[in-house]
Amino acid sequence: MIKILDCTLRDGGYYTNWDFSKEVVDKYIKHTNNLPIDYLEVGYRSKPIDGYLGKYFYMPVYELAYIKSNTQKKLVIILNEKDVRVEDLDELLKPIQGIVSMVRIALDPQQLLRAVKLAEAIKTYGFEVGFNVMYMSKWKQYDDFLNNLVHVNGVADYFYMVDSYGGVFPADVKETIALVRSKVDVKLGFHGHNNLELALINSLTAMEEGVEIIDSTILGMGRGAGNLKTELFLTALNSQHGLDLNFNALGDVVDAFSGLHEKYNWGTNLPYMISGGNSLPQKDVMDWVTTRFYSFNSIIQALQNQKEKVKDNEQLPVFKPQGSTKRVVVIGGGKGAYEHVDAVREFIRNDKDVTIVHASSKNALAYQDLENEQIFCLVGNEGHRMEKVFDDLGNFAGQTILPPFPRKMGTYVPSCVKNNSFELESVTFTDKYQDSHTALALQITHDLGAEEIYLVGYDGYNDFPIAEKERQLTAENEFLFNRFLEYSNKQVQAITPTRYDIPMNSVYSMIYDK
Amino acid sequence: MIKILDCTLRDGGYYTNWDFSKEVVDKYIKHTNNLPIDYLEVGYRSKPIDGYLGKYFYMPVYELAYIKSNTQKKLVIILNEKDVRVEDLDELLKPIQGIVSMVRIALDPQQLLRAVKLAEAIKTYGFEVGFNVMYMSKWKQYDDFLNNLVHVNGVADYFYMVDSYGGVFPADVKETIALVRSKVDVKLGFHGHNNLELALINSLTAMEEGVEIIDSTILGMGRGAGNLKTELFLTALNSQHGLDLNFNALGDVVDAFSGLHEKYNWGTNLPYMISGGNSLPQKDVMDWVTTRFYSFNSIIQALQNQKEKVKDNEQLPVFKPQGSTKRVVVIGGGKGAYEHVDAVREFIRNDKDVTIVHASSKNALAYQDLENEQIFCLVGNEGHRMEKVFDDLGNFAGQTILPPFPRKMGTYVPSCVKNNSFELESVTFTDKYQDSHTALALQITHDLGAEEIYLVGYDGYNDFPIAEKERQLTAENEFLFNRFLEYSNKQVQAITPTRYDIPMNSVYSMIYDK
Repeated sequence: MIKILDCTLRDGGYYTNWDFSKEVVDKYIKHTNNLPIDYLEVGYRSKPIDGYLGKYFYMPVYELAYIKSNTQKKLVIILNEKDVRVEDLDELLKPIQGIVSMVRIALDPQQLLRAVKLAEAIKTYGFEVGFNVMYMSKWKQYDDFLNNLVHVNGVADYFYMVDSYGGVFPADVKETIALVRSKVDVKLGFHGHNNLELALINSLTAMEEGVEIIDSTILGMGRGAGNLKTELFLTALNSQHGLDLNFNALGDVVDAFSGLHEKYNWGTNLPYMISGGNSLPQKDVMDWVTTRFYSFNSIIQALQNQKEKVKDNEQLPVFKPQGSTKRVVVIGGGKGAYEHVDAVREFIRNDKDVTIVHASSKNALAYQDLENEQIFCLVGNEGHRMEKVFDDLGNFAGQTILPPFPRKMGTYVPSCVKNNSFELESVTFTDKYQDSHTALALQITHDLGAEEIYLVGYDGYNDFPIAEKERQLTAENEFLFNRFLEYSNKQVQAITPTRYDIPMNSVYSMIYDK
Repeated sequence: MIKILDCTLRDGGYYTNWDFSKEVVDKYIKHTNNLPIDYLEVGYRSKPIDGYLGKYFYMPVYELAYIKSNTQKKLVIILNEKDVRVEDLDELLKPIQGIVSMVRIALDPQQLLRAVKLAEAIKTYGFEVGFNVMYMSKWKQYDDFLNNLVHVNGVADYFYMVDSYGGVFPADVKETIALVRSKVDVKLGFHGHNNLELALINSLTAMEEGVEIIDSTILGMGRGAGNLKTELFLTALNSQHGLDLNFNALGDVVDAFSGLHEKYNWGTNLPYMISGGNSLPQKDVMDWVTTRFYSFNSIIQALQNQKEKVKDNEQLPVFKPQGSTKRVVVIGGGKGAYEHVDAVREFIRNDKDVTIVHASSKNALAYQDLENEQIFCLVGNEGHRMEKVFDDLGNFAGQTILPPFPRKMGTYVPSCVKNNSFELESVTFTDKYQDSHTALALQITHDLGAEEIYLVGYDGYNDFPIAEKERQLTAENEFLFNRFLEYSNKQVQAITPTRYDIPMNSVYSMIYDK
């Protein structure tokens, strides 16, 4: 029968930052003892890196020893090839000799030869060695990788094909196995992701093609869309291949993780399906969709264009303001821009020299009738949002400004504002997050030559718990404000309430005498 | 390209009792217009039946007309063959001529010939006719069905294979298609369930084998584990077959149902996987697991035994009490049995003639040391729970009583209480829910000849919203109490707080003079 490696703690750690309660771990260890699983991969071993990462990312020896004394399974840890060199192995592996049976290496196929050296060194410590090689859907394009494959012979105990994008189909699995088999005579393994709900059929197909070990996790817990579900694989093996199975133990181990599933709710969804279907990094697609507000179509269109090497970017006239503007009000998407609208309007209205920059169109309608110059930042899906916000763009009097050419996700400008659309020449104050609303808005204030920059509706988020998307956006805006303050030495202040770390003032103090 | 029939409203209605808000329906209709879907099945048409069922179960003509005027898709309704006869068709179909394009018939394969007659009549009204034939995994065992298949030729426009149990694999799909093709020359369709996450690969396999129409629903919304997800199928067709696809419209239509998904949380899980893997009705498995408390192993064991025609039931001595017991205290699993334990013990302790019947072992420990006769109801998984509750069953002094022989899910009795285990001769006061804790406990009080029956810890549920499992259990207990009160004319009263409609008294009033 096929061997199973359950890597719930290791791969599930992407959701919990590699911490798990003792209760969950104890149940997991106890009940897997009654299941036909061969290996438990319980974490990474890692050299210290910045920031907080939990127990199962570093896998302290006492914890490994504790698990070892309670499990009948062979234990596995994994190393990130990109972060580990031969000279690190003493430190990482000596303490776990006799406790851990197998050390796996997660690697980019481009680094195969370096990984072979690492594996040879690992074997001298007496461990079985598994290669977990990413991006199997792209291997056939990597000639060097294919040519070097023979070097894993005699080194790897298991050579794993990892469906990193969750986009391979059973026919691809067969094809890749044939390709690998033509070079490699070690035992093969398969690690499937579930973006397209194909992890089970791909794993069963791999098994039929002679693969000897399969990875899975309880409830599919794992990065993004997650993995082959251990309970599904075992149930299928029971029904299709007569595997003897203790369903009570299976139910108990699923129960152990159901609280975490309720909390983190991993599993596939449309963005993950799109990543899978198009072999794209799922984190990028989720970012584009949820924090960058790109529409699905623009992502897909851009990606198809990239594949077909079509230029999908229309070059617009470069934004070159005539003269300079002393004061700019940047209006964000927060509620503050709406709640304090009367005061902000009062502040703006009495000063025709103020230019308004709408970082988002969300609150723009409340400012539409002001006669000041108005500029709209068109990032990602914002062109579509603009069309929804303004019933009639026919009377549109402002300018729209897009990020610099070429734009990763193509160009969408509502047709009736096209004559007033420009693109930035470049974003000069930051290398990161260049295509965000805030980066675009701040760069515009800089290009306008503004001396005083007033932020409105940059409330920040305070819901607790903050959703992942808001957390990212907050961190990103903090970074951009910091960078801009260092860079520009202009007067920047928030004049409606904010939770960001920027100088604050009150819009009401500024109009008290009006 | 393959035709797609989206039946979200029809099949999703199992979760919403066939009501959907206007907002959801409007979004669904609007955005599907921009998707490569051919048919929308929007509901059942049904003759009036008892109880409340919503709009999309009856599908009023005004609603069909409203949808028709807003969609570019062909509309479909479905009839339940078991409830509809030829003479009903005038009433059901005349009003919808010209609005609906296709009428489908959901049928048990055993009723194929009756369905053919119905289909012939439906065709006279000018509709396309689809046969949705259930239980495809069992067809090869149904000789009559296979022999009669030729009669669908010239009658059915589409002949659908329905994977009712969600348990077929791609190889089964191929086999069944070949079988059907050998008899039938109409266009084939496939309706896949997702218990084993095989709906996509089965549908793609069916397509490769020449099936011309596939059913799917948004987010897979549908009974139990749900269906092939429309968004997954379209994404896969886009990536594998170059189907032109508006991902924004797809995102919008998924959004329309995401609130309902959050609320009802359909999708597969371990009990649904087990149903799929073993071709069992998923509702039964869920009932056994969640309200009957049978363990997975006992369900699987019993089912394997049933398949192999193994007698898995050990016959125990029949429970035949000597003489009669005037007073019985039935202790349920509610908190009341624990919170008021001192008073209940006081009440029992002073009267050695009281027999205690533990409907559940949950609260039994708090009564263990009393010297009264104690009887434990062993339904479903209760034997295992008993072992967990009592550290040491070695000193166990009571009797355990099981439902009458043969027990659907086999027999589990902890070995050390076996000598004190009996089974009921029969449950006489009810035909329904005979293997529930409450039915067993009440029947025991009857067999004991009790005149006075005191219920403790039958709190009922008041969490809002009540989970489905609790709702079922509440309805079931209400039914059993009613039935027992009618049947036995004994004095039955709850002496700790209860939300059930049974006579109430206070345990404190009964011990006030003690």
